[in-house]
Amino acid sequence: MLFSAYLAAQRQRIDRALDRALPKETRKPATIHRAMRYSLFANGAKRLRPILCLAAAEACGGARAVSEALPLACAVECIHTYSLIHDDLPAMDNDDFRRGQPTCHKVFGEGLAVLAGDALLTHAFELVARARAWPRYDTRALLHELAVTSGSLKLIAGQVADLEGEGKAIDLAQLRFIHEGKTAALLTTSLRFGAMSANADATTLRTLTTFGRALGVAFQVIDDILDVTQTTEKLGKSAGKDVAAQKATYPALLGLDGARAEAKRLTARAHAALRPLGARAEKLRALAEHLLQREN
Amino acid sequence: MLFSAYLAAQRQRIDRALDRALPKETRKPATIHRAMRYSLFANGAKRLRPILCLAAAEACGGARAVSEALPLACAVECIHTYSLIHDDLPAMDNDDFRRGQPTCHKVFGEGLAVLAGDALLTHAFELVARARAWPRYDTRALLHELAVTSGSLKLIAGQVADLEGEGKAIDLAQLRFIHEGKTAALLTTSLRFGAMSANADATTLRTLTTFGRALGVAFQVIDDILDVTQTTEKLGKSAGKDVAAQKATYPALLGLDGARAEAKRLTARAHAALRPLGARAEKLRALAEHLLQREN
Repeated sequence: MLFSAYLAAQRQRIDRALDRALPKETRKPATIHRAMRYSLFANGAKRLRPILCLAAAEACGGARAVSEALPLACAVECIHTYSLIHDDLPAMDNDDFRRGQPTCHKVFGEGLAVLAGDALLTHAFELVARARAWPRYDTRALLHELAVTSGSLKLIAGQVADLEGEGKAIDLAQLRFIHEGKTAALLTTSLRFGAMSANADATTLRTLTTFGRALGVAFQVIDDILDVTQTTEKLGKSAGKDVAAQKATYPALLGLDGARAEAKRLTARAHAALRPLGARAEKLRALAEHLLQREN
Repeated sequence: MLFSAYLAAQRQRIDRALDRALPKETRKPATIHRAMRYSLFANGAKRLRPILCLAAAEACGGARAVSEALPLACAVECIHTYSLIHDDLPAMDNDDFRRGQPTCHKVFGEGLAVLAGDALLTHAFELVARARAWPRYDTRALLHELAVTSGSLKLIAGQVADLEGEGKAIDLAQLRFIHEGKTAALLTTSLRFGAMSANADATTLRTLTTFGRALGVAFQVIDDILDVTQTTEKLGKSAGKDVAAQKATYPALLGLDGARAEAKRLTARAHAALRPLGARAEKLRALAEHLLQREN
């Protein structure tokens, strides 16, 4: 299958870039660098966010833009991994497994897991300092983008609302707020970073933003569906956790068929958003399709 | 006393700037913004780092540079507060009190305390994006400075080494490594940020770096001494914690008199470093003196 070969090649490229971008395991104190790398290089990491970043760069600026986007692609993956490590902590989602492996705090202890998350969050910003700046997007613009997306009004807002919503009856608007923060914001920034690395114009940036928001929520609806329909083995994380934690999910609020219809509707909206980019957005279209049909 | 009036005025100025710089308590989700502000505006916050930042700006560029340095002064205080919130967690130092108030996780719960720390760390970088850039120090330079100082080779390295050193016999070199990471790195960046906000030349920046490193370690030696000699009430945090946690400290390794001599020696080195700045460094000299003589 051609598209799976593309995904595998992108993952390999991103893994190599991440390996170069992170302090070596032997750097003192070694434990923190081992813990950061343990979670960052966990088996089965999909690298969805950096792949979206590189695909957006390619859509906006071709092969050269893809290389330029690599530091920012690594930065979003560091943010994503930090958020997983902290979300998995006993005080939060209390998850023992992630991608089929024991979670960071199960291996390194809670204190070190908190610090490994902190270090990956901080490292993401160091990577922004290393990224090339562009006439339309200087370091300040890149920094502002990542800080706002990762901050208390977006990524962290989603996590707080999720934590506070457990065991409570929340409505679709609140669920949407959670997912726009927890998932859609960073997916959108991944795409925007790709466009920025190609010095894309404002219209193209808006196009990718609209695509990212629809795709991000679609992604989360599908995640909710998979939590209900798949086994722990297939997911690589504990299945049925949402039901057990009495979390509101799309299937819980809309029914399984309703959730599937919502995922289709959002994916269609994502596809529609890409129309102005024409053939250049081929990879982004294939990625959206791939996400709708995924099984883990 | 004139100097205490200066300190009070600076604190007030910084508190106002922090209040403007942080999302309001009412912003959704309100809990996270309440938690961030609870720790950031804790009674008795000394604002040492931002005061050093403003004093360095004044030494290098006079009153106007002080205003320019305010966003960066707020950024270092956000980093400092995040590190306190995470250090106080049960999985780390497990402290119930800080500055005479219950710690963040005692009031808001562990999950939210982790997130409030994350949010303050992230917000520090947003503040860097808002700071003015200078011919010698653009946003990239400011961002790199803060990311490296806060990262896994400095601030977090110190905390990891501290965590791993508990109950073990560590030597003076290792203790120095801990304190250079946990304390001296951010104090030094505070001073460097002040100098950068005045577009100081490379020689002046080096002068303040040397001053910061000596002052930072002196500060920590004194902290260790106070933990042994002062009451919990006077410290505003649990006294005798280091001994209870079997932590290596300067008094434990050098004896109380030896630790006091070391603090004096480092303070003398800090003063010597300031000599090239002449009368302009008056406030920085007074701050170093103040830190040596403090009782909490």
